[in-house]
Amino acid sequence: MLKTRLTERLGLRHPIICAPMAWAAGGRLAAAVSAAGGLGLIGGGYGDADWIAQEFRAAGNQPVGCGFITWSLAKQPALLDLALSNKPKAIILSFGNPEPFAKRIKDAGVTLICQVQTRRDAAHAMACGADVIVAQGAEAGGHGQSRGTLSIVPEVADLIAKDYPDTILCAAGGIGDGRTVAAALMLGAEGVMVGSRLWASKEANVSQRMHDTALSATGDETIRSQTMDLARKLEWPKQYSARVLINEFICRWHGREAELIAVADEEAAKYRAGWIEGDPEKSNTFVGEVVGLIRSIEPAAEIIERLMREAEDLLLSKPREIVSQA
Amino acid sequence: MLKTRLTERLGLRHPIICAPMAWAAGGRLAAAVSAAGGLGLIGGGYGDADWIAQEFRAAGNQPVGCGFITWSLAKQPALLDLALSNKPKAIILSFGNPEPFAKRIKDAGVTLICQVQTRRDAAHAMACGADVIVAQGAEAGGHGQSRGTLSIVPEVADLIAKDYPDTILCAAGGIGDGRTVAAALMLGAEGVMVGSRLWASKEANVSQRMHDTALSATGDETIRSQTMDLARKLEWPKQYSARVLINEFICRWHGREAELIAVADEEAAKYRAGWIEGDPEKSNTFVGEVVGLIRSIEPAAEIIERLMREAEDLLLSKPREIVSQA
Ligand SMILES: Cc1cc2nc3c(=O)[nH]c(=O)nc-3n(C[C@H](O)[C@H](O)[C@H](O)COP(=O)(O)O)c2cc1C
Ligand SMILES: Cc1cc2nc3c(=O)[nH]c(=O)nc-3n(C[C@H](O)[C@H](O)[C@H](O)COP(=O)(O)O)c2cc1C
Repeated sequence: MLKTRLTERLGLRHPIICAPMAWAAGGRLAAAVSAAGGLGLIGGGYGDADWIAQEFRAAGNQPVGCGFITWSLAKQPALLDLALSNKPKAIILSFGNPEPFAKRIKDAGVTLICQVQTRRDAAHAMACGADVIVAQGAEAGGHGQSRGTLSIVPEVADLIAKDYPDTILCAAGGIGDGRTVAAALMLGAEGVMVGSRLWASKEANVSQRMHDTALSATGDETIRSQTMDLARKLEWPKQYSARVLINEFICRWHGREAELIAVADEEAAKYRAGWIEGDPEKSNTFVGEVVGLIRSIEPAAEIIERLMREAEDLLLSKPREIVSQA
Repeated sequence: MLKTRLTERLGLRHPIICAPMAWAAGGRLAAAVSAAGGLGLIGGGYGDADWIAQEFRAAGNQPVGCGFITWSLAKQPALLDLALSNKPKAIILSFGNPEPFAKRIKDAGVTLICQVQTRRDAAHAMACGADVIVAQGAEAGGHGQSRGTLSIVPEVADLIAKDYPDTILCAAGGIGDGRTVAAALMLGAEGVMVGSRLWASKEANVSQRMHDTALSATGDETIRSQTMDLARKLEWPKQYSARVLINEFICRWHGREAELIAVADEEAAKYRAGWIEGDPEKSNTFVGEVVGLIRSIEPAAEIIERLMREAEDLLLSKPREIVSQA
């Protein structure tokens, strides 16, 4: 068993948090992760009150949290009340300024997790009172920025050690097996947030065709792009892009952003239709570079048990293998 | 002491290779790294026969290797003979197809190291006979591609385990302290290649002003760009960009590549003048995201000793701290 301040403070069996993946992480996945000893989060995403309420119900009695895309939450702040009324185990804010929401979350006695992509945003989130910082590297599936996991995690760890020693650090981006969990812990993280690897689980809301496409891809076949946000007419701040599998849509539009903007109305409709059908070519399969390590769709509990067991074995055996007393 | 197949096979005291940094890694740095128990490499870069010969002389009796930018070596293949005539400990080829050179290197009984940025290029380099693969992540200083260190390393490790079990894997990109060394080993690397952290050493050929600028930067302040190659009129294949500190030059040209190409003659002269003066604003400081962990310029031997000692301590202490038998 891996024991860190994350497991202690949040009462978890394993130092693993399921990423609040919009659509993919509903109540079913969140509940499965929490039941397996991690922290499950509902992916509140851009914010749909009915869906969020429904997914909290679907999680049943399992203690789960909820995540929001912060710049989108700012447009409909009442969604935070809805989430808080469900007595979430944590609220996670990603992609935007957590300041307008931090006090309400903390006053409700709920753990505030902030996912950040830069040292600067980590410092700001801690100044806002974040209990847990998730430092997300660019290898991550879905939205993010450009810093690598291997580099952002130790730099934020140093910042925490210096200025906010009570804050707990987790790593996100590329975590998908025991090696990557063990590496994250060596970098100074006290837990991991896993997206893609749990997206590739039986409990995730993902189309069979997207799952199938991902299973045959290597990590070389993903790309960060802004085209899907232009096509969907989502107002993402310009520093963010999303990692997806390279497909027909990407080959057509990546690098032709200006042209895409000009025909966005038409493309938005096509994209939406592709998304509803779960079409991996006409919309996008949001998944990270770690896709190259994923070879089967399994129950979330099995994935978590294996990651933790592998990490533990590696942490015990690797030093014996390579540290020589000579 | 850390003992891996890299230390055994190459007869090193420490599993650390100094990156073949064009200009910055001359004979002095290479010799210092080899004397400290690692493998020092002269950064043959784009290829200048006089400079390479001079730097091999500067390395004296220390066994050092030499690195080339492969697509540039292809234009003046005789440089490989020059390097081989100096009985190098290894030749490292990065950024291009190693195939035309692999046989000559191996026939000379010299270790062939290939630095790659994708799973696909790793597979190709191994098919060409690489003895050591360096999987380089995008956080790296200098040229590279987009995959993150945390993700490319385990994926290449799997490929090696399956198809080329004799090949030795090293990680590059973001390695700058004991945590990052330990993480790389957990990911499946058997050694690390360190660039930026040894660029920030007393023995590197780097201007004082660039060193000073780097010491005050965080990892947020680097960027991957192609502008410097356009300004220098270097014919880099389009998949490569270089990581540098964000500065006056970058603010002026990044995102305005078409305009830059139109005035490249004029800009090339200005850039060259800035580079010769070691000006961190008018040319570029090539350094990786790990710059955020670097706070002093030290002798290479001290850097290596500390990285190795920290990694060893962490490998021994971290499992005790977090693995509970319960
Ligand atoms: C399908 C998918 C959807 C995602 N949606 C969100 C989201 O709505 N909100 C969010 O904060 N992060 C989202 N992310 C990013 C995750 O929070 C996390 O940073 C990422 O998955 C970690 O990298 P990994 O995919 O390599 O595990 C998403 C990731 C994926 C794969
Ligand atoms: C100043 C500088 C110059 C570099 N020049 C070269 C080069 O000429 N050839 C090469 O193969 N790699 C070069 N690199 C990349 C390194 O080989 C290596 O991949 C990188 O430094 C590793 O990442 P790190 O900087 O985070 O340690 C250079 C790196 C730096 C920092």
